[in-house]
Amino acid sequence: MGQMMNQPLLISSIVEFASRHNGGSEIVSRRVEGDMHRYTFRECHQRSRRLANALQGLGVKMGDRVATLAWNGYRHLEAYYAVSGSGAVLHTINPRLHPEQVAYIINHAEDQLLFFDLTFLPAIEAVAAHCKMIKGYVLMTDRAHMPADSKIPDLMCYEDLINSHSDDYTWPQFDENSAATLCYTSGTTGNPKGALYSHRSTVLHAYASALPNALNVTSHDTVLPVVPMFHVNAWGLPYSVPLTGARMVFPGPALDGKSLYELFESEGVTMSAGVPTVWLGLINYALQNKLKFSTFRRTVIGGSACPPAMMNTLIDEFGVEVVHAWGMTEMSPLGTACVLSSKHKAMPQDEQRKILQKQGHAIFGVDMKIVDDDGKELPWDGVGYGHLLVKGPWIISSYFKGEGGDVLQDGWFPTGDVATIDSDGYMQITDRSKDVIKSGGEWIGTIDLENIAMAHPAVMQAACIGIYHPKWDERPLLIVVRRPGQEVSREELLAFYEGKIAKWWTPDDVVFADALPLGATGKVQKNKLRDHYKDHKLPTA
Amino acid sequence: MGQMMNQPLLISSIVEFASRHNGGSEIVSRRVEGDMHRYTFRECHQRSRRLANALQGLGVKMGDRVATLAWNGYRHLEAYYAVSGSGAVLHTINPRLHPEQVAYIINHAEDQLLFFDLTFLPAIEAVAAHCKMIKGYVLMTDRAHMPADSKIPDLMCYEDLINSHSDDYTWPQFDENSAATLCYTSGTTGNPKGALYSHRSTVLHAYASALPNALNVTSHDTVLPVVPMFHVNAWGLPYSVPLTGARMVFPGPALDGKSLYELFESEGVTMSAGVPTVWLGLINYALQNKLKFSTFRRTVIGGSACPPAMMNTLIDEFGVEVVHAWGMTEMSPLGTACVLSSKHKAMPQDEQRKILQKQGHAIFGVDMKIVDDDGKELPWDGVGYGHLLVKGPWIISSYFKGEGGDVLQDGWFPTGDVATIDSDGYMQITDRSKDVIKSGGEWIGTIDLENIAMAHPAVMQAACIGIYHPKWDERPLLIVVRRPGQEVSREELLAFYEGKIAKWWTPDDVVFADALPLGATGKVQKNKLRDHYKDHKLPTA
Ligand SMILES: Nc1ncnc2c1ncn2[C@@H]1O[C@H](COP(=O)(O)O)[C@@H](O)[C@H]1O
Repeated sequence: MGQMMNQPLLISSIVEFASRHNGGSEIVSRRVEGDMHRYTFRECHQRSRRLANALQGLGVKMGDRVATLAWNGYRHLEAYYAVSGSGAVLHTINPRLHPEQVAYIINHAEDQLLFFDLTFLPAIEAVAAHCKMIKGYVLMTDRAHMPADSKIPDLMCYEDLINSHSDDYTWPQFDENSAATLCYTSGTTGNPKGALYSHRSTVLHAYASALPNALNVTSHDTVLPVVPMFHVNAWGLPYSVPLTGARMVFPGPALDGKSLYELFESEGVTMSAGVPTVWLGLINYALQNKLKFSTFRRTVIGGSACPPAMMNTLIDEFGVEVVHAWGMTEMSPLGTACVLSSKHKAMPQDEQRKILQKQGHAIFGVDMKIVDDDGKELPWDGVGYGHLLVKGPWIISSYFKGEGGDVLQDGWFPTGDVATIDSDGYMQITDRSKDVIKSGGEWIGTIDLENIAMAHPAVMQAACIGIYHPKWDERPLLIVVRRPGQEVSREELLAFYEGKIAKWWTPDDVVFADALPLGATGKVQKNKLRDHYKDHKLPTA
Repeated sequence: MGQMMNQPLLISSIVEFASRHNGGSEIVSRRVEGDMHRYTFRECHQRSRRLANALQGLGVKMGDRVATLAWNGYRHLEAYYAVSGSGAVLHTINPRLHPEQVAYIINHAEDQLLFFDLTFLPAIEAVAAHCKMIKGYVLMTDRAHMPADSKIPDLMCYEDLINSHSDDYTWPQFDENSAATLCYTSGTTGNPKGALYSHRSTVLHAYASALPNALNVTSHDTVLPVVPMFHVNAWGLPYSVPLTGARMVFPGPALDGKSLYELFESEGVTMSAGVPTVWLGLINYALQNKLKFSTFRRTVIGGSACPPAMMNTLIDEFGVEVVHAWGMTEMSPLGTACVLSSKHKAMPQDEQRKILQKQGHAIFGVDMKIVDDDGKELPWDGVGYGHLLVKGPWIISSYFKGEGGDVLQDGWFPTGDVATIDSDGYMQITDRSKDVIKSGGEWIGTIDLENIAMAHPAVMQAACIGIYHPKWDERPLLIVVRRPGQEVSREELLAFYEGKIAKWWTPDDVVFADALPLGATGKVQKNKLRDHYKDHKLPTA
């Protein structure tokens, strides 16, 4: 055995480090109450310790689940550190889930306490009766904003709660494999399943995701996580940013283009992270109002494929570097990030862009492979695609409470994505396996088809699904949302595919829609689209 | 417990990752044999597996020590991965130690095998008779370069050894706390003591040291570690660079200014790391020959204090960013690195430089504090100094075989350094505690005095030591090595201190020397200087 200090990797060490070594770094939050709030990591640590004492006072024990239903903000951050740091398990709930799903996961997780933002008071009042195990509800606001009366009995006030406790608290030391946070998948089919992260997996993910080849968080950044803290822990930013001393800016509930733009400018945000739909709003607002960013330099985009047109606009119009990243709830979430290597530096710009559009290179800790239907590993040639499997210390080995049974295949987690990997290790997702279109025994990836459509100036959003075809089994149908005030016909769009893709991949038909159905994490819900268009008759059929 | 994959942090996972995900990244080595050698991480992994099989064939078992006495090069790198990866312990020996010390540590470590470069054949022939436990000697060269005959019986040839084994080898999985590498301190007093790193500590150090706020190793860098692989594992670069896909360039034995300059230019080196004495040689060569660097952008300097004059020259004359870093053998070695934070960005340049001259900010994982003689923690005000203590998962808890007994103070490792820490967490070393000059009960830090002298254009190197004084106990004596062809008098130098420092800190005398005695890790050996000048009579005495 080596003779090194024996120190568990614990989430409490992150806030302790930030408070001690970057104590003066600022955390800025746009509050649900409407105003701006500012304090430092030192104060964040102090209030987290008060909250830890309060949790103890409320009878929360090691391993107990404590839920939050909240936007990105400083109180949510305090809950992150206090709950996990004290040995309990933070269960972040996605408020965009159906109320029945919210009640289901609260009961499934056996949550003891629920902390929530003002926004969600009506929603919680509606589900509270179905959540029998919850022993206490805490509204994350101050006395002045507490409702005069509420259907929730004994509703607690967050500020009162922490003010009634001392900050004299020493973070307990325990096994780093202890559970720290619980996050449910959005579960398009069946009930949501929980990913139960450990302290060890969270700290390792924080180290790895902050690396220069991944999120690249530096001490002189001002980081605004648009990705919600209820969605896989905001991609780990509440853990990776405090390692570095960067400033943090939280947008609260205001995620529209205008609110984000104003916050980016007023706070001098340099770095951000979020899903493509959020950037769509921000970009449109800036374009419509002919605005540029003064400080914004770099963003991470993931959660679904970043359309090349969006990447090009961010880089070419706004001078914002884009890091395309890929991961999933089951992966904490980061698996790959796309940053160029030395060998790419000499390439012409459009070739570089093609690399940057890939989901990228594995981050050290993660291994991946693509396999055929029989589980045989496929070569990394950048062309052949297969089912993507992953492993690593921040990837789940099973779902919470064993839901879904044995999920691993020979020690690897099957992601449900279909991908290619090139000889330099750059991975590109071609589709979700369940969205792939099976045309005459061959596969057509829908991401490519959608990206081409979205490169058309009149197209705001596009989705492609497989529709029944008597001869080919399935053929692609393109569903398009036009930009406000813009026109484009079915024929023009079909002609737009010419020369960009193999002829037989071209969609068989185009329909126009006012909006696409988005799931709780901002992804297009293709199962809804398939349902909606299941009787659509293709002209080729 | 969380439900995450259970995967130990092992050194073998580093070379496996590099080979699989950055397999085409190049490793370039200037060989001891004189020529250049190039191959990829894929080939490095393959040859490391051959070597692992060879070690097994030679009877090396889990935990056995295998020693190397070698320069920075690809064969040494293969030994890094093969020895630790297979579960044995890599013991890197500093060839600049006295032969008796080399024999002492070989015996103390109970090394089973010794791998060494051609350069060291005579040295090994001289000590072999005293190393009874070594079962085999391997000369790290090919058949053509083997000596016709050698005093070492059964001397093995490295290339023959690995060529006679297959690359069919699967890295064993074992407890991440297992010993991985052993490195002895240079031990200015008493025998060298061993720091026994674990796989866990090495992998965590690799993650932490590669962070943007620390070494900041990126996929598009070409990294040349000047810091030797026999000195605390070249500051971990053989582990952190492969995480990123960067190119590596190894300088072999040629560490003079001319050889380094030529290698930096011919290989397009972008990043490097080394002790100040190395940069002195390189800078002097470039200045004398009026040369600039075409690709070199960033260097890490540590091991002893980087003189501000050197930092200014690198930044202002050569456009090379300098990251001042601090650590020690007992810390794997990295503890702090100096990178500016947001709040520093608005400062005038000379104020920024003052920050950059500090040893910097703790890297996440490391905690530090300064204490007074009674062990009481001192405030972080950037002025008051105290004994520097550290803790973290890559810091030793005891020396190999328990030498030196209980070394920790209440769980903290005493570094033997004296430092200040400012309110932003930036630490500055003022001295080694044993080098501090005690003048009339007050402390005078020698690093400041030396830095002032080295800012004088005629001074190449300077060292300051305490000399007996009948009234004050000790007073500072400055020892100066002048630049070739430059003149400066004792009086001019003393006058040079005026206004730069408190009057009573000014040295009492100056002597000139042709060179300063350097220890095995390139540091000035102040104990030798104190010995040499112990009868020097100060004019003030
Ligand atoms: N940047 C630095 N400035 C001043 N002293 C340093 C620096 N880096 C390392 N040292 C000294 O080198 C010691 C460690 O020596 P070693 O174990 O041989 O690497 C530390 O305890 C410091 O005294």
